[in-house]
Amino acid sequence: MSKVTGIAASTGIAIAKAYQLKAPDLSYEAKEVDNPTQEIERLEAALNISKQELEKIRNHTKKTLGDEHAEIFSAHLLVLNDPELINPMKDKIKNENKMAESALDETANMFIDMFKNMDNEYMRERAADIKDVTERVMAHLLGVDIPDPALIDEEVIVIANDLTPSDTAQLDRNFVKGFTTDIGGRTSHSAIMARSLEIPAVVGTKDITSLVSQNDTVIVDGLEGKVIINPSEDELLAYKEKQANFEKQKEEWAKLKDEPTVTKDGHHIELVGNIGNPEDADSVLQHGGEGVGLYRTEFLYMGKSEMPSEDEQFEAYKSVLEKMNGKPVVVRTLDVGGDKHIPYLDMPEEMNPFLGFRAIRYCLDHEEVFRPQLRALLRASAYGNLKIMFPMIAQVEEFRAAKALLLEEKENLRKEGHEVSDDIEVGIMVEIPATAVLAKQFAKEVDFFSVGTNDLIQYTMAADRMNERVSYLYQPYHPAILNLLNNVIEAAHSEGKWAGMCGEMAGDPLAIPILLGLGLDEFSMSATSILPARTQMRNLSKADLASYKDELLAMSTAEEVLAFIKEKTE
Amino acid sequence: MSKVTGIAASTGIAIAKAYQLKAPDLSYEAKEVDNPTQEIERLEAALNISKQELEKIRNHTKKTLGDEHAEIFSAHLLVLNDPELINPMKDKIKNENKMAESALDETANMFIDMFKNMDNEYMRERAADIKDVTERVMAHLLGVDIPDPALIDEEVIVIANDLTPSDTAQLDRNFVKGFTTDIGGRTSHSAIMARSLEIPAVVGTKDITSLVSQNDTVIVDGLEGKVIINPSEDELLAYKEKQANFEKQKEEWAKLKDEPTVTKDGHHIELVGNIGNPEDADSVLQHGGEGVGLYRTEFLYMGKSEMPSEDEQFEAYKSVLEKMNGKPVVVRTLDVGGDKHIPYLDMPEEMNPFLGFRAIRYCLDHEEVFRPQLRALLRASAYGNLKIMFPMIAQVEEFRAAKALLLEEKENLRKEGHEVSDDIEVGIMVEIPATAVLAKQFAKEVDFFSVGTNDLIQYTMAADRMNERVSYLYQPYHPAILNLLNNVIEAAHSEGKWAGMCGEMAGDPLAIPILLGLGLDEFSMSATSILPARTQMRNLSKADLASYKDELLAMSTAEEVLAFIKEKTE
Repeated sequence: MSKVTGIAASTGIAIAKAYQLKAPDLSYEAKEVDNPTQEIERLEAALNISKQELEKIRNHTKKTLGDEHAEIFSAHLLVLNDPELINPMKDKIKNENKMAESALDETANMFIDMFKNMDNEYMRERAADIKDVTERVMAHLLGVDIPDPALIDEEVIVIANDLTPSDTAQLDRNFVKGFTTDIGGRTSHSAIMARSLEIPAVVGTKDITSLVSQNDTVIVDGLEGKVIINPSEDELLAYKEKQANFEKQKEEWAKLKDEPTVTKDGHHIELVGNIGNPEDADSVLQHGGEGVGLYRTEFLYMGKSEMPSEDEQFEAYKSVLEKMNGKPVVVRTLDVGGDKHIPYLDMPEEMNPFLGFRAIRYCLDHEEVFRPQLRALLRASAYGNLKIMFPMIAQVEEFRAAKALLLEEKENLRKEGHEVSDDIEVGIMVEIPATAVLAKQFAKEVDFFSVGTNDLIQYTMAADRMNERVSYLYQPYHPAILNLLNNVIEAAHSEGKWAGMCGEMAGDPLAIPILLGLGLDEFSMSATSILPARTQMRNLSKADLASYKDELLAMSTAEEVLAFIKEKTE
Repeated sequence: MSKVTGIAASTGIAIAKAYQLKAPDLSYEAKEVDNPTQEIERLEAALNISKQELEKIRNHTKKTLGDEHAEIFSAHLLVLNDPELINPMKDKIKNENKMAESALDETANMFIDMFKNMDNEYMRERAADIKDVTERVMAHLLGVDIPDPALIDEEVIVIANDLTPSDTAQLDRNFVKGFTTDIGGRTSHSAIMARSLEIPAVVGTKDITSLVSQNDTVIVDGLEGKVIINPSEDELLAYKEKQANFEKQKEEWAKLKDEPTVTKDGHHIELVGNIGNPEDADSVLQHGGEGVGLYRTEFLYMGKSEMPSEDEQFEAYKSVLEKMNGKPVVVRTLDVGGDKHIPYLDMPEEMNPFLGFRAIRYCLDHEEVFRPQLRALLRASAYGNLKIMFPMIAQVEEFRAAKALLLEEKENLRKEGHEVSDDIEVGIMVEIPATAVLAKQFAKEVDFFSVGTNDLIQYTMAADRMNERVSYLYQPYHPAILNLLNNVIEAAHSEGKWAGMCGEMAGDPLAIPILLGLGLDEFSMSATSILPARTQMRNLSKADLASYKDELLAMSTAEEVLAFIKEKTE
């Protein structure tokens, strides 16, 4: 028996035998070629067949997992169509008489090394993308089979150095009970997919592939981020019990699906879900969500070659509103820039993209992009309970300008004979420190606040949330964050408005008692967190938690906050 | 007569005839070469002579303008020694039989285009650096003379597309009365040099070189950012009067050199200067500074190939303390990262360097860099009134860790027999929103605060201060900023500590009344702003300004704040 620690990427316990997903042998003997033209044709043939395969996988993924996940393969197709990657390969063949394999290999490695050595998780993920696609092309050049996880037909735990997006998309959750990898983090593609598929996963174990042999019994503990190889009988029993308890807990949670979210002392809390595309709304409903607290509309724009039309957007918004059937749906207008790039929107290269020309800053400057979205939203408002929120608002003037455009389009649509609801609340994301500080002034003008903690924390601490060197500063429990949250919530209430949260923090079991105590009205989180949160809230007294507020806000460190809240909620 | 508007880069009025600093003719006829080896030798010879010249200019600049300015030429020398730039040139000669001129031209242009098209002033300045050095190399390849501003021997206004750092360094202020350029901004090298030389300058006029002919009479109005070409008699008279008034005003200011800084209602304000190297301390004293509020020690580390030794640093700190002769000197420990790169410190490439591994974050992780600086400071403390401040503090734990290292080294030095002062105040920069929000908690542990507005504003507004697309958000007068400043100042006073400011805002005549009203104790600014600020403060009543505080803090926009303060101080 041996135990390996990694990063818990998707909850649950899985027990099954190991299936080593081995990389194919892509070795080759380099030699000079006599006929570069013919060699370029070989490369192009391999590129073409790879593109066809990727298109197939994309369509398959779209059907099984939805648009958001399929987008990864659109990104892969963009890689294969990128002249910056492909031309140097052809040049190597033409000018240096290299064979296609060498040209592909050397060019890809140059880019992979460049991205991999950046101290930044996002760029390292881009390196993984290039690796994934170029290996596929290489396999076709060499006539070698690529391992096909779709062929797995018995219950297994998949063991791999890294699961490529193409691998993950092909996993059949009837057979693949869990997986574990050497590399990756909580935000790598495979981790995100695992959570969507609801398969337990532990990533970033460093050396799991060298420790596990084919058919070893393996336990993946996605609750604690551990992998147990060939467990003892006692261990196996203990984990089977843990697994059963987790299943039982899930059943307990499920019983609360149609129950209201009420604290022990009788306060109702709005418990809603974050979604990226219309299909996600089903999952929110299945998990008992009381509405949608954040609809990230940028996924409508991603993985495309041109902007979605007003009608296309209207259909998407309408479908979510209809699914939610009168429950509130908070739609965030386009949040591009930062780490989200949309090629056809022609955004500038920036030195510090997180402090750059993003979201509302871009939209106010590009009305030709912004107005169609506002029109689509207004038209959809007739089909449900729509609330609109603007991202990255830093000053009152920006909110006024965005709202003016909205009212202008409302007027236009009415003149054109469209039906538009009169009860659309218009609010803002609070994710910039200036806005949290000035919440009192904002509260006079907006209908609601929704705190985006991911960005609010990174700006307040001046620490890029994707940069591992400063990750120690990314502290949701830092008293500075709590003071800002308190300021936002108090400001909202003083003007009779509501305050919600749609960042990661809202679903964090350690943060929930703090946020209840601060008086947060609405908690928006990933669908699978809703029922555990409801369970937790039903056991907490809001009044008790509120009584700790002053003490918490006067603390100096996140450590003190955590110790205090753990003690009080034990 | 025609009038051109640009960016006021250095104050004052200059009137003289135009001297067009024309670029040399660097055209050549491209042809294939038979002997690449010989051609590479030609390139290397041109590179070597360029390096020798740059070293000469660097040494000359060091003597006339000091280390900080000479550093630009160290950067240029690094460019010429950079294999990433030079190797592709040699490859082009070797593999493509290009002549050295073409190889230089094509390679340089590729890098220049890459940097120039970035929507970021800093990177565009790097493009200018590469252009400057490669033109020098090209001139040597072609045997063409480079224009030599050092040869100017009559009073002129220099007109140029852009003044390269090498040009500016050679300007003799006895003859060059002012200059104006097509391109550039307030932070371009030439603008910074102009302010140091105290020569009026207007940059970024777009097309001044095409509007002015040699020997035209030109007026450079560095107060309002205007250039007048061939003025009418009336205009000339008006500007001569404006010039005389400005000179008179400077004389008025100079009278206050040894006067205290006291408001109309009798409050003493600490008016001190920002410095980058020991020589700057002389300028602070000449301009009547009551101390040094910010000594940026990173210039000691820049433009070098290895870290300055403890002794070297000790000598620098000691020399400033001795010059200031008992007046307070606030030294900021090493602030690297962000836009300040020091090659030998081996810092990671980052996606968002302003939110990255900088300043105290780096220093706490690199004690081998941090401890020698702390030791040098402690040893120097015996020679004056030293205060130490740590940059980029985001959490109390960082301050505690940095202070612990300081106390440890104090102990060590005493054991080694060194004298160390017992009265060193230890404070922090307040430049991260979290720290401004949590000022009350910090005030219990630090001896003082100094607000770094440049960073505080960019983080609070989530807007890169070097990114022109979001420059509209860089608002010192934003009520969110004022509320944070108020929080910092109140926190300091409630614990009996002092609060200062060392960002650009402290010297801004529009901000000064607001800051006085908020109760700021210490204002640190560039030396030339000290006397105008003292003059202004002597005419303001702190009590009156303080009475506007609540009204200002409740405002919603920077526009309201500005309109209000302009009205109240008219």
